[in-house]
Amino acid sequence: MQLKAEQIEAALAETLQSTRGADCPSQLEQALHSAVFPGGKRIRPRLAIAVAEACRADDAALVLAGAVSIELLHCASLVHDDLPCFDNASTRRGHPSVHAAYGERIAVLTGDALIVLAFESLALASSSHPKRMAGVLAAIAKSVGAPSGIAAGQAWECEPSIDLEAYHRAKTGALFAGASAVGAIAAGAQSEGWHRFGEHLGRAFQAADDVCDAAGDAALLGKPVGRDAALARPSAVAERGLSGAVARVETLLAEALDMVPECPGRDGFRKLVQRDAQRMLPAGLVRVAA
Amino acid sequence: MQLKAEQIEAALAETLQSTRGADCPSQLEQALHSAVFPGGKRIRPRLAIAVAEACRADDAALVLAGAVSIELLHCASLVHDDLPCFDNASTRRGHPSVHAAYGERIAVLTGDALIVLAFESLALASSSHPKRMAGVLAAIAKSVGAPSGIAAGQAWECEPSIDLEAYHRAKTGALFAGASAVGAIAAGAQSEGWHRFGEHLGRAFQAADDVCDAAGDAALLGKPVGRDAALARPSAVAERGLSGAVARVETLLAEALDMVPECPGRDGFRKLVQRDAQRMLPAGLVRVAA
Repeated sequence: MQLKAEQIEAALAETLQSTRGADCPSQLEQALHSAVFPGGKRIRPRLAIAVAEACRADDAALVLAGAVSIELLHCASLVHDDLPCFDNASTRRGHPSVHAAYGERIAVLTGDALIVLAFESLALASSSHPKRMAGVLAAIAKSVGAPSGIAAGQAWECEPSIDLEAYHRAKTGALFAGASAVGAIAAGAQSEGWHRFGEHLGRAFQAADDVCDAAGDAALLGKPVGRDAALARPSAVAERGLSGAVARVETLLAEALDMVPECPGRDGFRKLVQRDAQRMLPAGLVRVAA
Repeated sequence: MQLKAEQIEAALAETLQSTRGADCPSQLEQALHSAVFPGGKRIRPRLAIAVAEACRADDAALVLAGAVSIELLHCASLVHDDLPCFDNASTRRGHPSVHAAYGERIAVLTGDALIVLAFESLALASSSHPKRMAGVLAAIAKSVGAPSGIAAGQAWECEPSIDLEAYHRAKTGALFAGASAVGAIAAGAQSEGWHRFGEHLGRAFQAADDVCDAAGDAALLGKPVGRDAALARPSAVAERGLSGAVARVETLLAEALDMVPECPGRDGFRKLVQRDAQRMLPAGLVRVAA
């Protein structure tokens, strides 16, 4: 099985196609498209596919459907996260955010419709492994809902006292863990070790994201920077300072690489993660463990 | 198969239980509970169950899981519909609405988490009929997403020019149609006729809801009245006046009753719908076709 980046884009486009048509109010249809295209780095679906390939998956349709579902849920979380009541971000991926372009109501509905579409498209995907399909769906749902998925992660921001560990694990770690687990489950492999690896990689990514927010370039990132400080949100930079946060990213990445479970494609997978990790921090700030 | 109202409540409570625990931020956990309990009339899950029983369903677990999923999605739509950017309603079912009690951010996340839970609980339900399960999930997803489910229905409110037919069909008809179809699919019956019946019943219900909004009692309804007029929303009352709207409800109901497909329990099912319909309009306003 070899899935390429273009196939993720094509599968996302094909999935969105089902929301189009005369019945769909035109602003919702446009907003759904702009929430998914142009994409960011598609890190999570690529992670799911890379894990599946490392485990020598033989059901490409299921792997791709799981990857698409994860990316749609990630897009949904970005749309809701950008809302005025959360980050109030006016740009995303270098374009106006959905609420900036279409208003708050359409932004709420776009997120809702993307969540529905993520589960609908997965449930309707053809797969020769119905049991793996149920496992994939359960792993994805766990990573986005309550008590410990993305929704819970964002909800920690509303608590008077934050459980930092649970906050980061749910807000970012959960979907990385879910993506890794989905790749393994779709390949018929044990998922626990991959789940732990993904969660750790997610921690590294969250710390890197905090560094980008503090020291990155808004134009290069395609979204506003300085939001954590402005919103007094907990972040690796607030906790450890900029160089401490960069060091933390490096440590977490090295630990994650050690946690990659035994599998036929382990070496290639680790190299892939290392290569991708080079792009996680603002240029010049990071040394990735070789 | 005989499913009682208490079983819907118990199944909803058991499903919500999975969102609890130390990992879940406390406000989100409380908000999820308050979005589902105390319930309204649970019309949609009861409809799904009644259709399944009329079709002599033999898979009670699947019927109940489908009914629970539909009610969770209905609750999610109410939470988002009450948001300041939509109806800005401060009460619901006689209690503070979720955003009034927990703030806008928790309300957005509560709706999101309920949508996820609806699909997660359905996918994990035990069923001896995996193909029916996939059909149930697809019917439910279709009734809540884009292009023609609840999300699309609410999105019509944001268009400069509204397709009234599509608006009502999506905003209310879709979930009634979905509930009816789910009952039929879970019973292994043909769903098309039930879908059409449900959509028509949903029209009657939407018109009745418009009448309640114009002439009902906020205390009895447990939610604010006069919202359609205040928000200049299209409604049966705006279109036909109060008595015209009441007549429209009666006509739609009678038509829906004629559309009930042939099935072993057709007579009993029709009587049930007639009895329930008595409660749809403010007392004294409606004459239901006998």
